[in-house]
Amino acid sequence: MTHFVLIHGAWHTGEHWAPVAKRLEQLGHKVTAPTVLGHGKGVNKNVTHAQQIDDLVAQISKADLKDFALVGHSYGGTIISRLAEEIPDRIRRLVFWNAFVPLPGNSLDDETPPHYRALFKQLSDASADRTVTMPFPIWREAFVNDADEALAKSSYETLSSEPYQPLIDKLDLKRFYETKIPKSYLNCTEDIALPPGEWGWHPRMSSRLGLYRLVQMPGSHEVIFTNPVGLADKLVEAGRD
Amino acid sequence: MTHFVLIHGAWHTGEHWAPVAKRLEQLGHKVTAPTVLGHGKGVNKNVTHAQQIDDLVAQISKADLKDFALVGHSYGGTIISRLAEEIPDRIRRLVFWNAFVPLPGNSLDDETPPHYRALFKQLSDASADRTVTMPFPIWREAFVNDADEALAKSSYETLSSEPYQPLIDKLDLKRFYETKIPKSYLNCTEDIALPPGEWGWHPRMSSRLGLYRLVQMPGSHEVIFTNPVGLADKLVEAGRD
Amino acid sequence: MTHFVLIHGAWHTGEHWAPVAKRLEQLGHKVTAPTVLGHGKGVNKNVTHAQQIDDLVAQISKADLKDFALVGHSYGGTIISRLAEEIPDRIRRLVFWNAFVPLPGNSLDDETPPHYRALFKQLSDASADRTVTMPFPIWREAFVNDADEALAKSSYETLSSEPYQPLIDKLDLKRFYETKIPKSYLNCTEDIALPPGEWGWHPRMSSRLGLYRLVQMPGSHEVIFTNPVGLADKLVEAGRD
Repeated sequence: MTHFVLIHGAWHTGEHWAPVAKRLEQLGHKVTAPTVLGHGKGVNKNVTHAQQIDDLVAQISKADLKDFALVGHSYGGTIISRLAEEIPDRIRRLVFWNAFVPLPGNSLDDETPPHYRALFKQLSDASADRTVTMPFPIWREAFVNDADEALAKSSYETLSSEPYQPLIDKLDLKRFYETKIPKSYLNCTEDIALPPGEWGWHPRMSSRLGLYRLVQMPGSHEVIFTNPVGLADKLVEAGRD
Repeated sequence: MTHFVLIHGAWHTGEHWAPVAKRLEQLGHKVTAPTVLGHGKGVNKNVTHAQQIDDLVAQISKADLKDFALVGHSYGGTIISRLAEEIPDRIRRLVFWNAFVPLPGNSLDDETPPHYRALFKQLSDASADRTVTMPFPIWREAFVNDADEALAKSSYETLSSEPYQPLIDKLDLKRFYETKIPKSYLNCTEDIALPPGEWGWHPRMSSRLGLYRLVQMPGSHEVIFTNPVGLADKLVEAGRD
Repeated sequence: MTHFVLIHGAWHTGEHWAPVAKRLEQLGHKVTAPTVLGHGKGVNKNVTHAQQIDDLVAQISKADLKDFALVGHSYGGTIISRLAEEIPDRIRRLVFWNAFVPLPGNSLDDETPPHYRALFKQLSDASADRTVTMPFPIWREAFVNDADEALAKSSYETLSSEPYQPLIDKLDLKRFYETKIPKSYLNCTEDIALPPGEWGWHPRMSSRLGLYRLVQMPGSHEVIFTNPVGLADKLVEAGRD
């Protein structure tokens, strides 16, 4: 039995893990899926990366969660890297699922290609609350490329706007790069949310983990929608000892 | 329902799509699979790339085909890129299946590694009709690597010699690189017709499409022979809205 | 029917092929799986690469093995490359399964990343018999990443220490790079025993074969433990004419 603490990515909330959690629980595992501060509809979007970490550390400490596999998806990679610095003794293994592993001192934004950086800034500047709303064509082609059109649309409706400030907050991460916590990288082979090659997830992000376990599965950046059962099964492979 | 217009690659004709078309039609889709000028046995091989485009534009206009997914395989990538310039309003989506996406001003030949360029020229020079005949060892190892020997041989017998001139015709393609038509790239993961890496199909060719949908499947450059049903199913994923 | 001569990798012996051989024989193929000199428990570890080759040439010549598919795994790639120089007329096809294809003049060590080279030397220096013992964390995360913990441990128990000298012996290999023997490369897509990318198996090693047949399957460097039946089936695809 593994206790999974699941950290979602940008535009998502903890509720998106529900079908994954159901499968994990059916297999006998335990799941905690908090929502990162500033995520969801109708919430305060004026947050920083540090506030997100403080809030999660408080939640995890208050519930006294221990000995768990900490999973981060996409933006969630920046969260679990920081949590590995703040509460290392509580974490049994880190699992990066097509997640950012920023170089020391970098923000998520620094790790994305120039056309994404320009787009994020432009959308944030044009918004009333300094957030980035996912454009549907990008969602459909580069995020849920393995969905049919109906699922592409229905999943899009569940997204919420992403606070811009945490995307550009610089993360020191020196302690993360010294941690001895075991690490896995789960890579979906059709994930083009980051463009494959020079800017891709794997091996660019994965190789930064040093000694790590690679697990792969078919699918897009959003198998949480298109194949949640398959995702859960691969998280088990990635999260076990 | 999608209407698929399927453009074959070098050494092939429109008839090679038959088992793929059968599956697509069983699934309720419509298929048109013209033969590109100069392809097939016993036909005039003295053609240019421009003549091939003119002929296809005439065929498509005469039949008044509209709102179709235009699929190009391999050499067919150079054809559909040009058709996107000539008849953009008729095309709903472009699907490149392990297909060339030449940089502006380049010929197909310019996009292949030096040893292929030398081989194409040498075989053309040695031929009576300025064509390139596929050498069986290359076909067997690098094109139908997933076939057994019997299928490698029987499929080889169906090939015809490829006119050399269209391989070296330079294609402007400026308008193609400005088109807003949605695009997909279908990549077969064991395709080594172009050598993986520096000269490979993906992400070298795919990334030139800008925003695009990636679909992948196992198999060689010639799943049209080794897995036509699987190919059809993936063309549906690549070709849908 | 194919006769497979199977050459194991470092830390392994010929006995590790048993479940693969069983499947191949069930399919009607013939299998010979010698142990490379210096491999196994309780044997003389004071050997060179040249002695390993001499011993195998003697074994194969004495048994008068002919017309076989010669498979090399990992370190075994350095063995089959040299055997292709010594007994080319006996070999029908070379199959490299996530195997080293050293550049002319290089040792295996020269083909591994700096952190592996440093580790091998350090472990050899610290040993009583100039051997390298596989550290369990590396085995578990980077070699049998697709195993559960029980199999990771039980498979680890079967390993033996690897003689250091053959890892650093320089191999001329000029004749290998001129051989006309057909070649295949079998790549397991989750194999991170060599880190993917700059130092990876594929296409770095595979592309050195010139014209070759690519076969891929899911799995780690050690599908010999985690999926021996699937491995056997892919060796058939790689080894046939």
